[in-house]
Amino acid sequence: MRHSLFAGGKRLRPILCLAAAEAVGGPWRTFWEPACGLEMIHTYSLIHDDLPALDNDSLRRGVPTCHVVFGEAMAILAGDALLTHGLGTFARWPEVDRYAQAKVRALQTVVEAIGTTGMIGGQVADLEAENTRDPTPELVQSIHESKTGRLLRASLAVGGILSFAADDVLSRLDGYGRRVGLAFQIKDDLLDVESDAVTLGKTSGKDAAAGKVTFPAVWGIDRSHRVLESTIEEAVSLAQELPGGGGRLPDLARYIGERKS
Amino acid sequence: MRHSLFAGGKRLRPILCLAAAEAVGGPWRTFWEPACGLEMIHTYSLIHDDLPALDNDSLRRGVPTCHVVFGEAMAILAGDALLTHGLGTFARWPEVDRYAQAKVRALQTVVEAIGTTGMIGGQVADLEAENTRDPTPELVQSIHESKTGRLLRASLAVGGILSFAADDVLSRLDGYGRRVGLAFQIKDDLLDVESDAVTLGKTSGKDAAAGKVTFPAVWGIDRSHRVLESTIEEAVSLAQELPGGGGRLPDLARYIGERKS
Repeated sequence: MRHSLFAGGKRLRPILCLAAAEAVGGPWRTFWEPACGLEMIHTYSLIHDDLPALDNDSLRRGVPTCHVVFGEAMAILAGDALLTHGLGTFARWPEVDRYAQAKVRALQTVVEAIGTTGMIGGQVADLEAENTRDPTPELVQSIHESKTGRLLRASLAVGGILSFAADDVLSRLDGYGRRVGLAFQIKDDLLDVESDAVTLGKTSGKDAAAGKVTFPAVWGIDRSHRVLESTIEEAVSLAQELPGGGGRLPDLARYIGERKS
Repeated sequence: MRHSLFAGGKRLRPILCLAAAEAVGGPWRTFWEPACGLEMIHTYSLIHDDLPALDNDSLRRGVPTCHVVFGEAMAILAGDALLTHGLGTFARWPEVDRYAQAKVRALQTVVEAIGTTGMIGGQVADLEAENTRDPTPELVQSIHESKTGRLLRASLAVGGILSFAADDVLSRLDGYGRRVGLAFQIKDDLLDVESDAVTLGKTSGKDAAAGKVTFPAVWGIDRSHRVLESTIEEAVSLAQELPGGGGRLPDLARYIGERKS
């Protein structure tokens, strides 16, 4: 658990959670634990995704994957434990009675984002779509939205829900999150094609080798870059419409497009 | 998920949850969903436990195991999803605002029971103890308490917590649960030695073949039977001390010792 959790990584989900809380005026400094819970859940998904039975990957976050170091049995259990304690985090923190309703709502939001209609559903669709002839952009977008977008959106929602944000504010955060999720995945697919393993910290060129459906495969590289840019501009505008100009959220959207790993 | 969840099984965890709620005077008929959540979590643990990297078992609840039918990748994801939605159940039901505190507490109790200091910790200890020379009864008991006992105890606790039972009542339920958990595992180990796969619905004689530490291995069969009986009698007495005589709990303890699978 420590090997994979503390190997680094961008910490994008906790950052989005805390930035959303800050943007809507919540006491974001008291939300470290649920923010960490999001990273634990993301790390669980990476450990299981990298297993031999799934993507069979040996490099992640610049270090050997969990099953390479500790064996498959321990990697399965480490992922299970990170999921368990990640979700448990939302039940436990903040440890103040008046948060009980918000904690229950945050937890439900995360469960829906990572369950059969979210991340796990996307994983299954991804496995089933491998080597699909002529995948459509809609299929690619639907798989990525489930696999990656939903947890990014939920991370923003958790920050908003724990800050007792009004429904229309939560809805704007979610609009921002949809664009950030899409931009994140277009960039991820582009990095897989255009970058190398040392910079990425994970195996590059892997999508094509595995027959994965990707944005560059359905749109080509140039159009993928153009959609990436326009999606980020939409996200920036939506964040700036929040009271206070969205705090760090516009810059976070720009970072998605500029990141190198 | 459906293949493994609806293959039958004793449904002991949901039954303990509902029987505990009934015994303490709670509206147990409104707790079906959290009770089902406990069975989903138990089923997740069976699916992952049966994987080739762990116990590599091909028969469970009288049907081929999940990975035998659907492949390893799908079995890992099915287990992940049952854990996710099992825990999500406690956040969602009962769908009444005044339960928010109780739901958060129930969820925390279950997470502690199935996390690194509970079920998953027991799985790791079990893997590490395989082929231990001269295991002590304390080691066997500690592994079984983590792997099996904790979730059985948590099932009773969930029924009590959602019924707003007082702390001393919860503490008595837990004393009962400790005995039931121990008795359950002694009986499980005895069935593995004394029964056959058709009756059990899972592979028999497997513990010895895998070098697992068991009660019959450290105590012998006769003493295991004697401890089983005295433990069940303790459980029955503790349940009968509850207000109203413990409802169905005494009979449930007796069933643990008499069951054939």
